[in-house]
Amino acid sequence: MLSKSRISLVRSLKHKKFRMLNGLFVAEGEKIVKDLLTTSPEKNFFNIDSIYATSEWSAKNKNGIIAGPDITEVPDEELKRISSLITPNKVLAVVRIPDFKQDKDLIMNDLTLVLEDIQDPGNLGTIIRIAHWFGIKQIFCSENSTDIYNPKTIQSAMGSLWSVKVFYTELSSFIKYYYESTDLPVIGTFLKGISIYNRQPVTKGLVVLGNEARGISEKLVPYMRTRVTIPAYNENSRPDSINVGMSAAIICSELRRDKLSHSK
Amino acid sequence: MLSKSRISLVRSLKHKKFRMLNGLFVAEGEKIVKDLLTTSPEKNFFNIDSIYATSEWSAKNKNGIIAGPDITEVPDEELKRISSLITPNKVLAVVRIPDFKQDKDLIMNDLTLVLEDIQDPGNLGTIIRIAHWFGIKQIFCSENSTDIYNPKTIQSAMGSLWSVKVFYTELSSFIKYYYESTDLPVIGTFLKGISIYNRQPVTKGLVVLGNEARGISEKLVPYMRTRVTIPAYNENSRPDSINVGMSAAIICSELRRDKLSHSK
Repeated sequence: MLSKSRISLVRSLKHKKFRMLNGLFVAEGEKIVKDLLTTSPEKNFFNIDSIYATSEWSAKNKNGIIAGPDITEVPDEELKRISSLITPNKVLAVVRIPDFKQDKDLIMNDLTLVLEDIQDPGNLGTIIRIAHWFGIKQIFCSENSTDIYNPKTIQSAMGSLWSVKVFYTELSSFIKYYYESTDLPVIGTFLKGISIYNRQPVTKGLVVLGNEARGISEKLVPYMRTRVTIPAYNENSRPDSINVGMSAAIICSELRRDKLSHSK
Repeated sequence: MLSKSRISLVRSLKHKKFRMLNGLFVAEGEKIVKDLLTTSPEKNFFNIDSIYATSEWSAKNKNGIIAGPDITEVPDEELKRISSLITPNKVLAVVRIPDFKQDKDLIMNDLTLVLEDIQDPGNLGTIIRIAHWFGIKQIFCSENSTDIYNPKTIQSAMGSLWSVKVFYTELSSFIKYYYESTDLPVIGTFLKGISIYNRQPVTKGLVVLGNEARGISEKLVPYMRTRVTIPAYNENSRPDSINVGMSAAIICSELRRDKLSHSK
């Protein structure tokens, strides 16, 4: 039996305010939690506070678990009470919000995504998944972006949340630093720019994507060394824009293409 | 004032059953409706049954409208009653569900998307938008796919709904026909296959994407002439899959790349 105060704590974590206050968030869903619990400790960036599961799930899975505390078995009804999902779920983990350290060497030697004011949790989640697919290990978000520990972001990021480090930071000083003190490429995505298909090859740099409605803001524009665009097939018949998750997918694919087309 | 029966008709259209019964669907949101009403009649595939707007919206926009019936002005509260959106909106159109004719010449000479059992309305909507961006004019969905006239699909497809023809059909006989009677490329996307970056160039063909969880079903597999995949950057550290909308974006971008990289 979970205590009343524990139940109310877990339930409160669907709100950002209480996540910040307690330094905790909830990860739900069999696949997502299993990915977390079966990541070897040295590869795992996250500390697990507690795991709640049905006895059935626990019996089936506990031998494969290599990370985290013991499972607390709870009845179905209790799991439902602490869950923020509509569909019934069998396991839920309470996880500590990490305090990642930026890896500057990695920034100087690999691609890094920079996201300004992404508002839709589903978009942020799918961008994390695409970053993971294309081997991008760090993402920097503006402070006004949607929260990565929002239940919807976690659902759409799926297990990729455990493999990509996401930072929130004041973007103009972050980008300005690399613009002024290094020669690292800073590539902004715009509706007008150099075709992404005709770009100079790059293996490293900051790749900046803007807000869903407004794009990259004026205060970041001066630091973009290159402005790229995804050209439409027919400029006279095209949507005003494409979804930012789609743009991220196409741009990551293009930037990793040189390496990937030689490796297979 | 709208009659009670009219209000209940419009409200009922959020359910597929009543859309099918009445042959009507609802398009909401300023941008989406404006795109519909300002498409020249010869390019417009849709017949508009009625338009409901606030007097303010009507005064501002009626001169630019080149398609559809007169606007019925309704008070804010009434528009709210017939709307299925949470955020207040200023205009709503009731549109006839079209009975498109397949353009076989276009299938034989251009790229066509084929979607099997896409379940998420947001995914279907963003795929329609990406198809529009990359100049793909016809999409064929299996009969078990989510309904394109679902309010969520319409929101995520945005104005692209008006420019891409979406058909629902029994896919195995549809694909079998082209496989057996023509030499049209039939390209299936899988987790294992030829790297999309190393494919043979194609300018036409059926491009098949499968269900979010199961991929392309066994009954369609025999008709795939080519199996392509989007390679991950690191096979030892990657998500199990990427979102089907992301796959569609990357594949459309790749297949249109040859033309696009020469045109700019």
